[in-house]
Amino acid sequence: MLLEQIHSPDDLKKLSIEDLPKLAKEIRSFLVESLSATGGHLASNLGVVELTIVLHYLFDSPRDKFLWDVGHQAYVHKILTGRRHLFPTLRQYKGLCGFPKRSESPHDCWETGHSSTSVSGAMGMVAARDLKGEDYKVIAIIGDGALTGGMALEALNHIGEEKKDMIVILNDNEMSISHNVGALHNYLGRLRTHRHYNRMKEDIEYLLKRIPAVGQPFAKTLERVKDSIKFLLVSGIFFETLGFTYLGPIDGHNIEELLESLRLAARTKGPVLVHAVTKKGQGYKPAEEDSIGYHGVGTYKIESGAFQKKSGLISYPEVFGKTMIRLAEKDPRIVAITPAMITGAKLEKFQEKFPDRCFDVGIAEQHAVTFAAGLATQEMKPVLTIYSTFLQRGYDQLVHDVCRQNLNVIFAVDRAGFVGEDGETHQGVFDIGFMRAQPNMVVMMPKDENELQHMLYTATQYDDGPIAVRYSKSAGQGVEMDADFKLIPIGKSEILREGNDVALLALGTMVPIALKAADLLQQKGIEARVINSRFVKPLDRECLLALSHEKIPVVTLEEGSIMGGFGSAILEFYAEQNVYDMQVKVIGVPDYFVEHGTIEEQRREVGLTAEQIAETVLGSINFKKVSV
Amino acid sequence: MLLEQIHSPDDLKKLSIEDLPKLAKEIRSFLVESLSATGGHLASNLGVVELTIVLHYLFDSPRDKFLWDVGHQAYVHKILTGRRHLFPTLRQYKGLCGFPKRSESPHDCWETGHSSTSVSGAMGMVAARDLKGEDYKVIAIIGDGALTGGMALEALNHIGEEKKDMIVILNDNEMSISHNVGALHNYLGRLRTHRHYNRMKEDIEYLLKRIPAVGQPFAKTLERVKDSIKFLLVSGIFFETLGFTYLGPIDGHNIEELLESLRLAARTKGPVLVHAVTKKGQGYKPAEEDSIGYHGVGTYKIESGAFQKKSGLISYPEVFGKTMIRLAEKDPRIVAITPAMITGAKLEKFQEKFPDRCFDVGIAEQHAVTFAAGLATQEMKPVLTIYSTFLQRGYDQLVHDVCRQNLNVIFAVDRAGFVGEDGETHQGVFDIGFMRAQPNMVVMMPKDENELQHMLYTATQYDDGPIAVRYSKSAGQGVEMDADFKLIPIGKSEILREGNDVALLALGTMVPIALKAADLLQQKGIEARVINSRFVKPLDRECLLALSHEKIPVVTLEEGSIMGGFGSAILEFYAEQNVYDMQVKVIGVPDYFVEHGTIEEQRREVGLTAEQIAETVLGSINFKKVSV
Repeated sequence: MLLEQIHSPDDLKKLSIEDLPKLAKEIRSFLVESLSATGGHLASNLGVVELTIVLHYLFDSPRDKFLWDVGHQAYVHKILTGRRHLFPTLRQYKGLCGFPKRSESPHDCWETGHSSTSVSGAMGMVAARDLKGEDYKVIAIIGDGALTGGMALEALNHIGEEKKDMIVILNDNEMSISHNVGALHNYLGRLRTHRHYNRMKEDIEYLLKRIPAVGQPFAKTLERVKDSIKFLLVSGIFFETLGFTYLGPIDGHNIEELLESLRLAARTKGPVLVHAVTKKGQGYKPAEEDSIGYHGVGTYKIESGAFQKKSGLISYPEVFGKTMIRLAEKDPRIVAITPAMITGAKLEKFQEKFPDRCFDVGIAEQHAVTFAAGLATQEMKPVLTIYSTFLQRGYDQLVHDVCRQNLNVIFAVDRAGFVGEDGETHQGVFDIGFMRAQPNMVVMMPKDENELQHMLYTATQYDDGPIAVRYSKSAGQGVEMDADFKLIPIGKSEILREGNDVALLALGTMVPIALKAADLLQQKGIEARVINSRFVKPLDRECLLALSHEKIPVVTLEEGSIMGGFGSAILEFYAEQNVYDMQVKVIGVPDYFVEHGTIEEQRREVGLTAEQIAETVLGSINFKKVSV
Repeated sequence: MLLEQIHSPDDLKKLSIEDLPKLAKEIRSFLVESLSATGGHLASNLGVVELTIVLHYLFDSPRDKFLWDVGHQAYVHKILTGRRHLFPTLRQYKGLCGFPKRSESPHDCWETGHSSTSVSGAMGMVAARDLKGEDYKVIAIIGDGALTGGMALEALNHIGEEKKDMIVILNDNEMSISHNVGALHNYLGRLRTHRHYNRMKEDIEYLLKRIPAVGQPFAKTLERVKDSIKFLLVSGIFFETLGFTYLGPIDGHNIEELLESLRLAARTKGPVLVHAVTKKGQGYKPAEEDSIGYHGVGTYKIESGAFQKKSGLISYPEVFGKTMIRLAEKDPRIVAITPAMITGAKLEKFQEKFPDRCFDVGIAEQHAVTFAAGLATQEMKPVLTIYSTFLQRGYDQLVHDVCRQNLNVIFAVDRAGFVGEDGETHQGVFDIGFMRAQPNMVVMMPKDENELQHMLYTATQYDDGPIAVRYSKSAGQGVEMDADFKLIPIGKSEILREGNDVALLALGTMVPIALKAADLLQQKGIEARVINSRFVKPLDRECLLALSHEKIPVVTLEEGSIMGGFGSAILEFYAEQNVYDMQVKVIGVPDYFVEHGTIEEQRREVGLTAEQIAETVLGSINFKKVSV
């Protein structure tokens, strides 16, 4: 086994070039075996085995910097930089992170998780290097999907202008998470097929050979024309237009080709783009055949690739997908928009059924939000389904284009709250705060999957501006689904359990936990009222005023950042009302980035289990009862 | 006067084509005269006179939709759609808005203020139109500066893919607010100069004529080559690559050319890009010669163009600009980054003095933030100066790249609080909330211009992560500037006035107002302690605990949204400490978008004057003293 000799890039450099394909094979076997037990991002890592080997073989990390865009394809990099033994803990609590992590290794110089950031980060490193007069290589590795993200294009634009030495490797695997969309992708497709371009090149050479040489002025003309033709044909016009030297397309699984191109890139002055064509899932048949299915996987059987069964309960995103079809059947104004998340958002069937009313705009969250705003100006009912963490990308558009114009855009905020194994880059804990701070916004979260369908229906019936339904990625509560949709009254909470010692105002996923906490409190003699708050905005003022009249202490519960969150809204409400004698305890996610683990572990870490909540309530509320 | 006959686009359509240049001249005179008294965006509007006339002459607004990117160039559009008589009230309280406003006119179908949104909005309208089977034109007018914004590129990518009928007019005036930067701009420059392209075209035609015709296969080759050459030469490769039909470049001040191109564009299937070259300030010499100076102007003398004198007090941005030079002289790690705001941010002299350490990245806020993060990973001290409202564009980058990696990026958040005449699209009222919700972030605001320089110095000396100094666009307090920089202790407030009946915790611009309010309260027998809070995060816990021990009611004052803002942080603190008996009143910007006017008027509207604050304090706090 070659792999067992590799504990650092230095060990790798001792191998001969001829050994590298063997090493690649061993790494693939290791990945397939290791991830079968832990789950993880399989297909994308199988696609960059040779590329990663060649990078570490040729360059000198950590002196030279590798920036892995999105970051879920850095497993091979982790294997080659001394972290192979940690793979049994991959994406587990306190285990190996599924993304680059600076605290894990000096070889991880840049943390990612969201897409399209690597080129900006690389440009920053390059500018620092040149100002300090240092000398090292900076290499961003970015997929073709991430390239449609506006910030990557902003960065390419700046890089092309500054003309500093750096290398961008375009890892072109024909898909982001779902299949790529967009004109830029089509352009890459044209480069990729290559035949047309080669044909043109041959044609032009054929022509040029036939042009008679007629003296000096003509020769100059010819030279210019040759340059322009060369420019068109052998280079990637798009990237050259932006100021890059373009190398490729090359076969990203061919080690010789990779070595040659990257050596050339390292010698080239100014920014270079190396276009490497790779295949997601390369070398593992089930993943090659279904690279979308094998993007991020749970555990599976190595032989067949068959996934281990998950919980039988329907998840919130699945309810979203099903409900969207029912809603769209009844209401032709409804369209769905997703930024490259057809699969994650469970929109596959919707897309099949309503291809004209389903817009996958690619990794382009900003555009997605404002595109929805444009639709809403024309009396459509756009439903933008977007992960909480990725809505951060569209924040200004939510403020400036949607809320300010008060347009009927429906935000289906998926992956709200903790997200488990993806960890800190993907936690959906800030959206409550940044959405509720916007005028005109309505923000709600269902207590279970049945309420989710009603909230989605309610959102499509609401005509007074933007409205958001946020929901967890997790399995639902297993409740029965009503056959007919019901309108949820805007800004109305519901009491789920009576009690007069304390009121637990719970939001969304915290409702079932609050009910459990109430049971535990009852064992201590405390009768807790449990309220399904439903709305972050507008608040149920009547309910809140009733609590203050009854002098019932309030505990707010949310799976979101405490800073500016739901509990904070309750505090503001009482301050606004000049109610200064209310006990209001805010329980939520404290002020740090919570790392990967299961959702359960993450809740426990921050004190959001029923037991911990009961304890916090007992320790922080002054009960009127003396018995406590 | 032709202009006096024009009360709607219908009136315009009655004119002959020959009349239009005369009308253009009249509109220019009107603009120069009217804006000399009110101020406003002069140069950009002088640049689009002919373009706007032709749009309304040829198309049928409001059936056809015009989306004005950024929006400050919609004055001619407003003149032609019945709002000429409102120009004396331009950008004044309750007067004509300086940007498109849906509530003002059915001809304003899309509101803007931030750049690069028009193409996404247009794509939404087009998608809605086609789904509803309707038939109208959608036309986005976007400047070359706004085109570098990532979201515009995201939208072009999507539009190129969907291939729906729409027109994008690229209003290419060679600058955004400062001169454009970036490779894309260079590309446009190449198109613009035109000569090189024409020369190449001639050369190639010359060559092709000399190629002998040698039978059928060769003829086909020739045809293909001709196509590819045509593709390269007469079309804008960049836009064609993205899937657009490219028309231009045309002279944007030539009415015949505009009419011809736009008629052609209207007949063309699929997305069309019309490249019109215009000149900012066209027709008014002072503005032609200094279009940056005449971008957004105050009042001026028509003859000379001389600006009326402003207040003699140095403004916060001016102090920022001067301080940056002093800091950079001492510390080679310091670099400045601005997204197209060299002038607005007062960085002209810094750029002159440190050209290598000043990065204008164009209208590319996302890239600007993450570029700064990249610099910070290499031990530089990047200072990103960015308007509060535009930092919203870089929100995810602030979260994911800066705060999560805990990098030493310094945010100089300019135009914090109310911004006056630009109004609701530009108010800097959300940054307190969205910055303080981020782990690792330090957020401060100075009470005066002297404290600003110390805070900037403190920020550059701080090594524990991201730190933000937010400051107003307004004139400073006229205080003396210390010769030497001082370190402000992180998280420490200062007491400016003693008093035990109530404590006014004021942030930044609210400090001098709080002092005045304290005087007024004193007249009512209330002794107010006035505290310059300085920090939104971390809070001065010691000070806050002391207030609760002394049982002194607290009133928080901020020129920012109440929702999740500074006051909210104080409420959270006391809840965290289980302190439930504190009176805390939160005064700030309420939950709606505050429109244009002077900063004074905006403060008055929301109750942030000293008089109003004193009144609110008296009406909402229960004082221990019976005398009140």
